[in-house]
Amino acid sequence: MYDVVIVGAGPAGISAGIYAVSRGMKTVIIEKTAVGGLIGKVSTVTHYASVMEGETGKTFSDRLEQQARSAGVEIVLAEVTGVELSGEEKKIHTNHGTYCGRKVILANGTSPRKLGIPGEAELAGKGMSMNAAKHGTSYTGKHVYVVGGADGAVKEALYLAKFAESVTIIHFEEQLGCIAEFREKVSRTPNISLRLNARLHGVYGVDQVESLEISNEKSGAIDTIEDPGCGIFVYAGTVPNTELYTELHLENGFIPVNENMETEISGVYAVGDIRVKPIRQVSTAVADGTIAAIHAAM
Amino acid sequence: MYDVVIVGAGPAGISAGIYAVSRGMKTVIIEKTAVGGLIGKVSTVTHYASVMEGETGKTFSDRLEQQARSAGVEIVLAEVTGVELSGEEKKIHTNHGTYCGRKVILANGTSPRKLGIPGEAELAGKGMSMNAAKHGTSYTGKHVYVVGGADGAVKEALYLAKFAESVTIIHFEEQLGCIAEFREKVSRTPNISLRLNARLHGVYGVDQVESLEISNEKSGAIDTIEDPGCGIFVYAGTVPNTELYTELHLENGFIPVNENMETEISGVYAVGDIRVKPIRQVSTAVADGTIAAIHAAM
Repeated sequence: MYDVVIVGAGPAGISAGIYAVSRGMKTVIIEKTAVGGLIGKVSTVTHYASVMEGETGKTFSDRLEQQARSAGVEIVLAEVTGVELSGEEKKIHTNHGTYCGRKVILANGTSPRKLGIPGEAELAGKGMSMNAAKHGTSYTGKHVYVVGGADGAVKEALYLAKFAESVTIIHFEEQLGCIAEFREKVSRTPNISLRLNARLHGVYGVDQVESLEISNEKSGAIDTIEDPGCGIFVYAGTVPNTELYTELHLENGFIPVNENMETEISGVYAVGDIRVKPIRQVSTAVADGTIAAIHAAM
Repeated sequence: MYDVVIVGAGPAGISAGIYAVSRGMKTVIIEKTAVGGLIGKVSTVTHYASVMEGETGKTFSDRLEQQARSAGVEIVLAEVTGVELSGEEKKIHTNHGTYCGRKVILANGTSPRKLGIPGEAELAGKGMSMNAAKHGTSYTGKHVYVVGGADGAVKEALYLAKFAESVTIIHFEEQLGCIAEFREKVSRTPNISLRLNARLHGVYGVDQVESLEISNEKSGAIDTIEDPGCGIFVYAGTVPNTELYTELHLENGFIPVNENMETEISGVYAVGDIRVKPIRQVSTAVADGTIAAIHAAM
């Protein structure tokens, strides 16, 4: 029996864990894959106050993990398979047993959205849906394509442009949807080109990507590009990981909370990208975790 | 003419500056003393997600400053002497000229509360009202007194106990008002003792503190302690630095804002400890700055 069970070890969950322990709560964080969440996989962590020069998702999440563990937060790697949130004792069922807590903080964020196009599943990891931070350097001198035009996509395009011969950003809108800083950096990076009003329509190949199809949003025309061995990096938005939370009313898949980060179920909190919120940044996720944990410990 | 003028370079102001610049805003931060604000003066920065092992107020604020400057935030050292917040063009008058901006973000936090007791002003810096991070080691083997029982006070008492022969915490309530982590550490620190239900009543001396008076909250009795050369560290709460903001309606001296951190005056935001808020932590200050800057740039 824990005082606080936290689901997800991204910045929101880690912050909640550190604060809960500091308030004397016996606390466990259950994480499916690795500490850091989506931010742990990015090439560079930007804008969060106090990041280090050249901070990567890896260095950032390593520091989060070390800080949480040395504070006394228990972190277990397990996949949540079901939850019972109502009632005094909340239960989080996982593939490694059930964790019970007086309070639960849901911090398991979002997952990258799939495109749902031919070849996406078959070529995943073979040139399709690659991770820029992990695989970027292996595309040195090669051609890469980045799908998406928001901050996350453009940041990775800028990173990949350091290694790749060419980077093509495929974005369905008329212009990039990113912040001025990134737009300006793109304009100063000669090996990045834009395919706007465009969508990735299919990828083809067996052991590697041999060709890709790009559709034009306006004309509907489809271009086929032969580009054997190219890399495709997809940052086409995210979807909240809320499918197990059937006890909660959701808004577009996200969890509504009050100003204390508490959901409609007493003792159940939701923090970070999984909750309804206007601004999704590391800093707001970390603050969410702080607020939820302090209230959970009251 | 700036897009955004920020008053105060603590965590809230620095975060606002970094975000404003990333959105293409021409941004200046006006700081009276030093980057970091009150947190820049603490012995250790705790709980904020991603701080480094042994992080001090100095290392933390040095990193904030470097990050902001390398992002392109202009930081000027000047003291604000008056403001004109109403109207399209907002004016911040300082002892080094006037800064005009379309948007203003007020992030100048709080100042330590004075005790208003005999000797406080006369002996300031001569043993009275010392800074633990700066002067702690010069009390190695000596007696120190910490006034206050909240997190900030107890954290510094724990730090001072590493050097001082004895640390006495003087707190007016029946028990310490700090988090469990700090209370538990105090109980494991043999050279810290508590004077509860007690207030510092006066300090006496000429070139150094020679004696201090402690009053008992319940009996009203006053003890005089002869302790030549001791150090007294005061953490007895803070007061918001809002005396110049007469155009704004205040609540107990703090600035009310909406969920976008905007005050009742359009284009004027307030972030961090200066605003009305339930939880005052570095993480919530940093998130406030993020939210205000993103909205100011819309």
